[in-house]
Amino acid sequence: MSELASRAMELDSADELAGLRGRFVLDDVVYLDGNSLGALPANVPGRVEDVVRRQWGELRIRSWDESGWWTAPERIGDRIAPLVGAAAGQIVVGDSTSVNVFKALVAAVRMAGEGRDEILVDATTFPTDGYIAESAARMTGRTLRPVTPAEVGSALSGRTAAVLLNHVDYRTGRLYDLPSLTAAVHAAGAIAVWDLCHSAGALPVGLDEHGVDLAVGCTYKYLNGGPGSPAYLYVRRDLQDRFDSPLPGWNSHAEPFGMRPGYEPASGAVRGRVGTPDILSMLALEAALEVWGGVSVEAVRAKSLALTDFFLECVDAYTPAGRVESVTPAAHGERGSQVALRCDDAGDVMKRLIERGVVGDFRHPDVLRFGFTPLYVGFADVERAARVLGETVAG
Amino acid sequence: MSELASRAMELDSADELAGLRGRFVLDDVVYLDGNSLGALPANVPGRVEDVVRRQWGELRIRSWDESGWWTAPERIGDRIAPLVGAAAGQIVVGDSTSVNVFKALVAAVRMAGEGRDEILVDATTFPTDGYIAESAARMTGRTLRPVTPAEVGSALSGRTAAVLLNHVDYRTGRLYDLPSLTAAVHAAGAIAVWDLCHSAGALPVGLDEHGVDLAVGCTYKYLNGGPGSPAYLYVRRDLQDRFDSPLPGWNSHAEPFGMRPGYEPASGAVRGRVGTPDILSMLALEAALEVWGGVSVEAVRAKSLALTDFFLECVDAYTPAGRVESVTPAAHGERGSQVALRCDDAGDVMKRLIERGVVGDFRHPDVLRFGFTPLYVGFADVERAARVLGETVAG
Repeated sequence: MSELASRAMELDSADELAGLRGRFVLDDVVYLDGNSLGALPANVPGRVEDVVRRQWGELRIRSWDESGWWTAPERIGDRIAPLVGAAAGQIVVGDSTSVNVFKALVAAVRMAGEGRDEILVDATTFPTDGYIAESAARMTGRTLRPVTPAEVGSALSGRTAAVLLNHVDYRTGRLYDLPSLTAAVHAAGAIAVWDLCHSAGALPVGLDEHGVDLAVGCTYKYLNGGPGSPAYLYVRRDLQDRFDSPLPGWNSHAEPFGMRPGYEPASGAVRGRVGTPDILSMLALEAALEVWGGVSVEAVRAKSLALTDFFLECVDAYTPAGRVESVTPAAHGERGSQVALRCDDAGDVMKRLIERGVVGDFRHPDVLRFGFTPLYVGFADVERAARVLGETVAG
Repeated sequence: MSELASRAMELDSADELAGLRGRFVLDDVVYLDGNSLGALPANVPGRVEDVVRRQWGELRIRSWDESGWWTAPERIGDRIAPLVGAAAGQIVVGDSTSVNVFKALVAAVRMAGEGRDEILVDATTFPTDGYIAESAARMTGRTLRPVTPAEVGSALSGRTAAVLLNHVDYRTGRLYDLPSLTAAVHAAGAIAVWDLCHSAGALPVGLDEHGVDLAVGCTYKYLNGGPGSPAYLYVRRDLQDRFDSPLPGWNSHAEPFGMRPGYEPASGAVRGRVGTPDILSMLALEAALEVWGGVSVEAVRAKSLALTDFFLECVDAYTPAGRVESVTPAAHGERGSQVALRCDDAGDVMKRLIERGVVGDFRHPDVLRFGFTPLYVGFADVERAARVLGETVAG
């Protein structure tokens, strides 16, 4: 056994989170794509069956009350809250990330007031945020200005209404400094909107502690909610009364069953709701969040960094020099829970890795992306993935 | 046996659709709330289990291609298309009805052009359409003018950009004349947007035949897709190139995996997509739509009218004079697939009906609502419901 393989065994033995793997349905594949679609938590199939057969099939319409369907968006929001450092009552689940970006940005611009005519958006963002930001700017009569996160400080001014940033870059895995960027946005009098898709469930976010104004995120990556499970929206408590939604559906009305012609927004996180929630996807997510029972995000973060450190070390040892190059920062403070490797023939290499049971993904044009979900990825997985990668790129 | 009970038996014997009831999971409750939440189709639980355990649990990320997840919104749209009289390639499934109303109305206003500054909306609509229309008007700089459907003709003018109407009123069950109203909207040079929530799956809609421009609808009523199953958006083929979405998420990009910073809309119905589709809810809907195999909407409509005719006759026979009053039109051409009865103590009466196994619903302040889904409601159900209602309001 190689030195790295025996190191992996020792690390797995000492891993306090190793037992969590049993909470998921996994096989002998090394699954490093949980940053795209989290693995299936073992308790989800039974829960979904109950929702379909009993709650829908037997109770039918009564389930809106009796099975707690109506209040699911807030209840599940409160379940996500501790994972992103938020007190209860500030997160609501529903709609896609894109739709929530639209709600958040338009509401942010309205909070900032008429005098501020510019929206800043991360120019390196996952594209949907940029497309939606462009629409939000167009529909609120503002100008959209794409800037790199490094340029945000100098781009901020009295014109800035809102800034939309990613906590972790989807491509490179770079972690941005949420506390200091939020503070800079606030110093300019603007509203900070954060996209947590690639950080929530992988590392501490501290929304309340750092005074974030609005945030959105998906739930199918490190939160393992299932394909296309609903996204969430965080609105800081003291801003909720000023949250003026561009999508004021009946679910966000103060009295939704009053069927009143005039819109009057509900108080609290409920104000972020729109239409009827997609109950099957939403209650699968609720079950998936139960895997977090007794798990601290700090412990997850510590293991995540150990996994990515070890992966980089193994890649360095197993891969011919110069064949791949990490575009993920080496510094812990700048690294999310993934490693992105630049590789000329990345598309082809990823196909061969998947054939050999190592699943990551490919991002155009030349990036191999490996996500590390500390709840179910171990150190032996990491060693094997790097070894297979080394053999693949050498072969 | 009463004369009405024996008539019910004869009608059930002659009912060519009676066998379809076996395609659903039902018990001895008379379920007349399918206009709120359709009953569970028998093939859905097995399909959902396969989606969860195999597609998500075993194939994981590969299912986006191998299980057809990525193309589900258009594929399922094409499955809905014949039920609403649309050729393939014009309907996409996803998001809630409210979100689709926003997409459709904003896009309609943009199609109508700068010179038209007014949006007409059905003043008697299900409230969410009105709230969302108000937001669409505000964000496009137009004025919203609520009018009753009867007033639409005189309200139309060269100022009208778009008109949002309901095919069937959610409260009274009144069916509006889609062909002639659409023609009137077109004669004024405006865009017609129809909400099909209470008609699709219950009666012929004829979207293509009548030249409707845009339409939206939910799938959890007469289409039995499950609680909060995704809604759909129809964009007439020759308008698709002009469909300028206010929610241009990455799923609607011409090259979604190109991850390009600039937005370039896809061609066709795909342009109506936004973010990642909620696969569990969506594939449950796909299975639910299979119950329509071999069923013609015309036959469903004929049975629907026979059911509501018979219900009105039974209510008249069993209920003390003046105790309830139908607010649903008697004329077939003006009736959807529900009967709404005004009743002073409607809230209390509905509670007692449900206790006795007759499930309808209550709409504030004084309406008993009974929906008739011809796929699984029979004439004996109708007679029993009316008999129990008669006993309840007399007692």
